Amino acid sequence: MPRYVAEVSYEGAYFSGWQLQRGLVTVQGVFEDALTLLNGGEHVSVAGAGRTDAGVHARGQVCTFDLKKDWNPRRLILALNANLPAETNAVRLVKAPCEDFHARFDAISREYIYFIWNASTIYPAIRSKVCWLRANAYDWERARRACLFLEGEHDFGAFCRSGNEPEDSVRTIYRSCLRKKGSLIMLRVTGSGFLTNMMRIIMGSLECVARGKKEPEWIKSLLEKKSKRPDCGRTFPPEGLFLWKINYSPPPWNSH
Amino acid sequence: MPRYVAEVSYEGAYFSGWQLQRGLVTVQGVFEDALTLLNGGEHVSVAGAGRTDAGVHARGQVCTFDLKKDWNPRRLILALNANLPAETNAVRLVKAPCEDFHARFDAISREYIYFIWNASTIYPAIRSKVCWLRANAYDWERARRACLFLEGEHDFGAFCRSGNEPEDSVRTIYRSCLRKKGSLIMLRVTGSGFLTNMMRIIMGSLECVARGKKEPEWIKSLLEKKSKRPDCGRTFPPEGLFLWKINYSPPPWNSH
Repeated sequence: MPRYVAEVSYEGAYFSGWQLQRGLVTVQGVFEDALTLLNGGEHVSVAGAGRTDAGVHARGQVCTFDLKKDWNPRRLILALNANLPAETNAVRLVKAPCEDFHARFDAISREYIYFIWNASTIYPAIRSKVCWLRANAYDWERARRACLFLEGEHDFGAFCRSGNEPEDSVRTIYRSCLRKKGSLIMLRVTGSGFLTNMMRIIMGSLECVARGKKEPEWIKSLLEKKSKRPDCGRTFPPEGLFLWKINYSPPPWNSH
Repeated sequence: MPRYVAEVSYEGAYFSGWQLQRGLVTVQGVFEDALTLLNGGEHVSVAGAGRTDAGVHARGQVCTFDLKKDWNPRRLILALNANLPAETNAVRLVKAPCEDFHARFDAISREYIYFIWNASTIYPAIRSKVCWLRANAYDWERARRACLFLEGEHDFGAFCRSGNEPEDSVRTIYRSCLRKKGSLIMLRVTGSGFLTNMMRIIMGSLECVARGKKEPEWIKSLLEKKSKRPDCGRTFPPEGLFLWKINYSPPPWNSH
């Protein structure tokens, strides 16, 4: 059975997250339905590189799946997209570089971007893609310095939704970078993996620093001590979060 | 009666254009309704800098209007936005620099951007904001050279929807510039004024050049000879077009 790799983009607001759930519209669900149709009705399972929560967007989620037939990838991506709702699309699709290539287990890192719009007014065109903070009370330079403490190998257990902590909550953050361009604030984090709600709790904690309620070094202390979820900031809303990119070494995209 | 100037952004898909039309949702209509409410029920007329067609977006439309009361502009913009649908917003609002300041007659130039996405696949997030061309048959460098012929004072009568030609169809284009960044093509045109559908017919004519059906110099000939609408290219769809900016000298925005 030939295996395929697809890069997938979606509008978070339309879906109850990535993962299959009975009775709900999920991205994995609409992909499995569309691919099963192309597979002559035989069920196709789709493995995603990461689970995104309800409302979270993706620019570059990655998934792998097997089909009975040997497809030309350029024909397959068109046939697949024709069977998907407009709110999600495969943007790239290739044959897997090897038969056991796996979207999740072969990923070497994941990149997320959280977008904030900090101004009293907003452009309607971006409203569903950012977290809109109206108040004029943020010092984002403080948050920029604070986010650097995330880099390295740390126990991120405190930055995980209560009850969803895995046995091992140690993750490595390769790069954490906050930029401000006019009213737009972008937090880009690249890591080995992310816990449930991790990016959104990181953003909520950086907000405490930006508002002057905490010092930048407080972020460091949340990672060093045996901190718990309630010690961190609030969980930011899903609509500002994008799963931006999944990295592989080598990238599968030009292997065919 | 104090006069105000507002910069207005909207999602084209939601409106039947800028201009008031009975029984249809228009941007001018929802602004007049919202402002009339704030004016104690006394009707407020709103003058826009330019009319946009149904489906055309605006980043920076500008309008002027008079209210009975003397408002603090910072309070007025919040009250106004609270009474508008999410698909449109005032993004800036100030008192007019003089009592006869007029959004349309005082404008010295207008800027439009037409966005094209030229690739076999698309990100769902941008789908409603671009014209999506799937074919791999365009040479945008040819269109870039062609669009330079638009600069200067010309009779744009051929680039106007049939039946909508004004008596004087001479306009000045101060700058015309086509850029390509990956799969995204942006045509930015700044001019003294624009005829009905002018940007969309320009885009359709540049498409003929990009596809190799016409030479770049053909654009020049459409402006020099007594050309007619059917001599030009097709009218591009409204969803790729943004009214980007209206220019005033001096800009009214920091006068108060």
